[in-house]
Amino acid sequence: MKIYRTDGSGRPDGIRLTEAAVPRPGPGEIAVRMRAVSLNYLDLKVIAGTFPGGRSGLVPLSDGAGEVLETGAGVAAWSAGDRVVTTFFPRWQAGPITEAARAVIPGSTADGVLQEVVILREDAVVAAPAHLDWGQAACLPCAGLTGWQVLTGARPVLPGEIVLVQGTGGVSLFALQFARAAGARVIATSSSPAKAGRLRAMGAEAVIDYRQTPDWGDAVRRATGGQGADHIIEIGEAGTLEQAIRAAATGAQINLIGRPVGAPRVDPAILMLAMGASYRRIAVGNQADFKAMNRALSALRIEPVIDRRFGPQAISEALRYGAERGQFGKIVIHLDEDA
Amino acid sequence: MKIYRTDGSGRPDGIRLTEAAVPRPGPGEIAVRMRAVSLNYLDLKVIAGTFPGGRSGLVPLSDGAGEVLETGAGVAAWSAGDRVVTTFFPRWQAGPITEAARAVIPGSTADGVLQEVVILREDAVVAAPAHLDWGQAACLPCAGLTGWQVLTGARPVLPGEIVLVQGTGGVSLFALQFARAAGARVIATSSSPAKAGRLRAMGAEAVIDYRQTPDWGDAVRRATGGQGADHIIEIGEAGTLEQAIRAAATGAQINLIGRPVGAPRVDPAILMLAMGASYRRIAVGNQADFKAMNRALSALRIEPVIDRRFGPQAISEALRYGAERGQFGKIVIHLDEDA
Amino acid sequence: MKIYRTDGSGRPDGIRLTEAAVPRPGPGEIAVRMRAVSLNYLDLKVIAGTFPGGRSGLVPLSDGAGEVLETGAGVAAWSAGDRVVTTFFPRWQAGPITEAARAVIPGSTADGVLQEVVILREDAVVAAPAHLDWGQAACLPCAGLTGWQVLTGARPVLPGEIVLVQGTGGVSLFALQFARAAGARVIATSSSPAKAGRLRAMGAEAVIDYRQTPDWGDAVRRATGGQGADHIIEIGEAGTLEQAIRAAATGAQINLIGRPVGAPRVDPAILMLAMGASYRRIAVGNQADFKAMNRALSALRIEPVIDRRFGPQAISEALRYGAERGQFGKIVIHLDEDA
Amino acid sequence: MKIYRTDGSGRPDGIRLTEAAVPRPGPGEIAVRMRAVSLNYLDLKVIAGTFPGGRSGLVPLSDGAGEVLETGAGVAAWSAGDRVVTTFFPRWQAGPITEAARAVIPGSTADGVLQEVVILREDAVVAAPAHLDWGQAACLPCAGLTGWQVLTGARPVLPGEIVLVQGTGGVSLFALQFARAAGARVIATSSSPAKAGRLRAMGAEAVIDYRQTPDWGDAVRRATGGQGADHIIEIGEAGTLEQAIRAAATGAQINLIGRPVGAPRVDPAILMLAMGASYRRIAVGNQADFKAMNRALSALRIEPVIDRRFGPQAISEALRYGAERGQFGKIVIHLDEDA
Repeated sequence: MKIYRTDGSGRPDGIRLTEAAVPRPGPGEIAVRMRAVSLNYLDLKVIAGTFPGGRSGLVPLSDGAGEVLETGAGVAAWSAGDRVVTTFFPRWQAGPITEAARAVIPGSTADGVLQEVVILREDAVVAAPAHLDWGQAACLPCAGLTGWQVLTGARPVLPGEIVLVQGTGGVSLFALQFARAAGARVIATSSSPAKAGRLRAMGAEAVIDYRQTPDWGDAVRRATGGQGADHIIEIGEAGTLEQAIRAAATGAQINLIGRPVGAPRVDPAILMLAMGASYRRIAVGNQADFKAMNRALSALRIEPVIDRRFGPQAISEALRYGAERGQFGKIVIHLDEDA
Repeated sequence: MKIYRTDGSGRPDGIRLTEAAVPRPGPGEIAVRMRAVSLNYLDLKVIAGTFPGGRSGLVPLSDGAGEVLETGAGVAAWSAGDRVVTTFFPRWQAGPITEAARAVIPGSTADGVLQEVVILREDAVVAAPAHLDWGQAACLPCAGLTGWQVLTGARPVLPGEIVLVQGTGGVSLFALQFARAAGARVIATSSSPAKAGRLRAMGAEAVIDYRQTPDWGDAVRRATGGQGADHIIEIGEAGTLEQAIRAAATGAQINLIGRPVGAPRVDPAILMLAMGASYRRIAVGNQADFKAMNRALSALRIEPVIDRRFGPQAISEALRYGAERGQFGKIVIHLDEDA
Repeated sequence: MKIYRTDGSGRPDGIRLTEAAVPRPGPGEIAVRMRAVSLNYLDLKVIAGTFPGGRSGLVPLSDGAGEVLETGAGVAAWSAGDRVVTTFFPRWQAGPITEAARAVIPGSTADGVLQEVVILREDAVVAAPAHLDWGQAACLPCAGLTGWQVLTGARPVLPGEIVLVQGTGGVSLFALQFARAAGARVIATSSSPAKAGRLRAMGAEAVIDYRQTPDWGDAVRRATGGQGADHIIEIGEAGTLEQAIRAAATGAQINLIGRPVGAPRVDPAILMLAMGASYRRIAVGNQADFKAMNRALSALRIEPVIDRRFGPQAISEALRYGAERGQFGKIVIHLDEDA
Repeated sequence: MKIYRTDGSGRPDGIRLTEAAVPRPGPGEIAVRMRAVSLNYLDLKVIAGTFPGGRSGLVPLSDGAGEVLETGAGVAAWSAGDRVVTTFFPRWQAGPITEAARAVIPGSTADGVLQEVVILREDAVVAAPAHLDWGQAACLPCAGLTGWQVLTGARPVLPGEIVLVQGTGGVSLFALQFARAAGARVIATSSSPAKAGRLRAMGAEAVIDYRQTPDWGDAVRRATGGQGADHIIEIGEAGTLEQAIRAAATGAQINLIGRPVGAPRVDPAILMLAMGASYRRIAVGNQADFKAMNRALSALRIEPVIDRRFGPQAISEALRYGAERGQFGKIVIHLDEDA
């Protein structure tokens, strides 16, 4: 079978194809035939060699969907043919995150899913929602579940509350969909008029152009009659945190996601501004959260937003496309020849 | 002006009309011209003299909507002409309920709103949602806010979760609307095929006939693929608690509303059944909750379900109609002659 | 090695001794040499055959402490010689309880710990606190962890708040110790003057005799200056729930533990009394809770209260003693010949 | 009577004495004879004119304790002679903070308590704990209640958990006392060996010298066996946030207090480090919190730590002493001549 590994070249598409025998599951394990995978920013950094601790020879990518090929001894939860999705933290079943749960991340601290057959512990996957195709299901593990967390803070999202999302990455679009599903009003930011239109079509009641309006935090506040946003997905890019805090309502909940690299500097006094505010450093989510999200996806027939799908012959192209970072939603690679 | 008071007759329509000068607000008070009021089961018991501690000569009814006529010294929050709604617990602004907050309930422990002009503390009312007429706004203080609490428990309602509501009283219909607004699936109970149809039209995915199916708790469980309901509005009638608990998913949240009278007996062992379940004794809600509910009503343009509206000449008729307890939604009395 | 199994006789000490080869752990499993076990009321019902679903031939008892003898393939968490404690729900690692977690209870739905060597999954045990001997550690899995839950409700216990515990069973004494550790005031109930003295010595500021004062709920309220208890451990015996609710402060949290058998009847209207109250059906706890409890035990050097210790030759005597239900704290059986 | 007002000089002791007739309470108000006041850093900035929006002629200081002299019409809660404490946010009774509640801060946005008699709304004070003298009670409104918040986050402090406090200001010492009262372990920081000794005497199990150990975050982690602190009081001085985050356990709760002035810069990527962490911007607290704190103070006989007490003739001296910022605990001024 085909296995892709990082080649250490530092190129955005720095992977090489290798071959190996199809592996067999041990006790408590399953073999999953991967049908589709999706890209996250972290994956791109791992492949480009800019992720601290990344190494050459790693099987990249954390997120995939596929079919159970074979089950090992003692596996009761799954049967051959079951449609499953992988998880970002395979050791994190439920409850708060732990040191042990954080240690294993496929495609980053352990081999990932860019291979035709993957061996996984039986509790490392969840059932794929029936209404989603392989590519859609592959969008869920990191971006989907991170976006879902907007609904799971200490302060729940109530209908009529205001959620602020930034940009058009996978997490932000999922958060927009989930916030709308929960009856919230959504304000979004984008510098592209075309993307702004698509955000409005997805239910954003206002879209603010952060290039034309560098003080977009105040613009959010104005767009909400002065009160500000109750829940914020903060993506951690240059200057965004300060604007997010300026956009925050008294008592707002600010969900911190994103990337601890090359970060600009912010005045910590800013953190003191939003009286009563709380900040949460989100770590994707656990399997119990994942199942709750899948219930919502199924009940409301929500479909992930896919920017572009690639076939197995176009993996390098997909990686280069992802590195451009201009997408609206997720980038998906189908691993079946006929996809 | 006209004031109605309980007459001590014990009849369902046991009120008498009196006249008085229009009162003037003192410091920190406002005078409100009541435009519409709505009926709750508690009101009917007060009028019929079956509510413990009720007394003859009380101005009945807790819930009303009207217009600010005049403001007293020092009132900054309101101006003449403002559209406001009264509150069930006028002394409960925010946070958990207190002994002091419980002590004052208009129409029950203090004079209520069945009078043309009511004097209230300025913090005893909230702004009426702009999209609601007087009669719709008058439905909110008790039934609306109690139904809203389904969303405010320690365990939040998430999209895709299952909410169980019982019957077609005001609280249950509000809870159904709010649960749907929050993306939840709803299961309802009713013994009337006609009402079942209306419940489905409002978004209930299944309606169970509790007369034909006395073990309706198990029926709910079957209707949910065996898992049971995650959130339950329990109305406290004969035998309902036991069925509600049988319907409950592991870890369910059961919201107890209703009426501590003539209660049947239940085996407390039943309470032990639902492993991980939590029960909350709901006490309507506070003004901060009320404002949050109004945000939701406004954002989603939700309208209360009114069974029937009566004019000021038909108050006795309205009370008798309410006492039959067959309604689908709220019963409203408009106090304007031309209503 | 020695294995004890229920003999189906229905006697309080209805077990029989069998012999078997010492078992070996499979992949992911450990073999534990049991050093001590403790008794819970559930165990006594299983042995007496009064627990629904109980069966003859089962290895009884859920709670034990011992030493890791051998580890199976792939076990990283433990080494031979480690001191460990078993768990009541071995499949419940963290987060809310699930159907799957509830299904496996040693000594009840699966073979338990009354045997010299037990094979367990590596995640089915936690480390024993270093300051506790084998008998003390064996008290923790069910009674200790259930008592700990008084601190983990949606409403946390704050210093200065009032916790009500009932009687002198293992759970109630642990709850008393944990409540005191958290800075709470404690009120207890007991019908024995001698036990009342011991409860006071453990930090209860008042002990109410529920025999002399059948309306002890009101007595609790009086003892707290009229406000009532903020947190209650309700043990589910005849009439206790009603008194507990009468003892409850506005907004109290009532933790339901105990035994769904032979229950008396209660007016559900009682549930409606305690405005703002919440009730939680406690299900012992998960492994993450267990570790948190052990941190507290270790930091504060808390020792479980043991009523009486028995040696391996006196198992039947211990069971009969437990069936008398007059103890103050836990009953422990040491399984070492020299204990 | 004597009233002190800021004199606009910009000096640390920039106040001037004025005289006025003793004021009388209006409806719903009380007159309080101030017996003692305490200093907070915010007060010192207001007096020195470095607090944005501060103005000359303001009566400074937010925190005081005194005796009810007279009650206005309609006041039921208080009688002459009652011992009361003022509140930092007099309009914030309960629940989350609101814009309206934030608007009124005595000594900052409104006249404060440095005057012999103060007129207050009846709900702007709470009862003083009986075991505290005037000076001790005057320490509570800002520093006491802010320190209390360490116990009230979305993640409660459990016995055995680790709380990190910084320095020896009033808030940190209260937090230390409350954390210990709740059974937590405490780690503190101080650059003074003498103060470190006093911190240890108050129950800190380790005190880290942040001057000798600039990377004190890692030192905290080492002192806790590698796991880090579960709860942190972050005081917002130069570089402290970064160290606090480095000290944080997975899933820690970081309470942000302090001063949005002259802040150094921090890499926001730091915020991303503590996976699962949450941050709360604390805003002192409301009256319901205050009463809960007073219950704890009374039940556990906790006494505020006072660095130094001054008499009414030494107000300027007290202000200059406070401006040196070297205290261990609170600085109190007694307003009685014979104090």
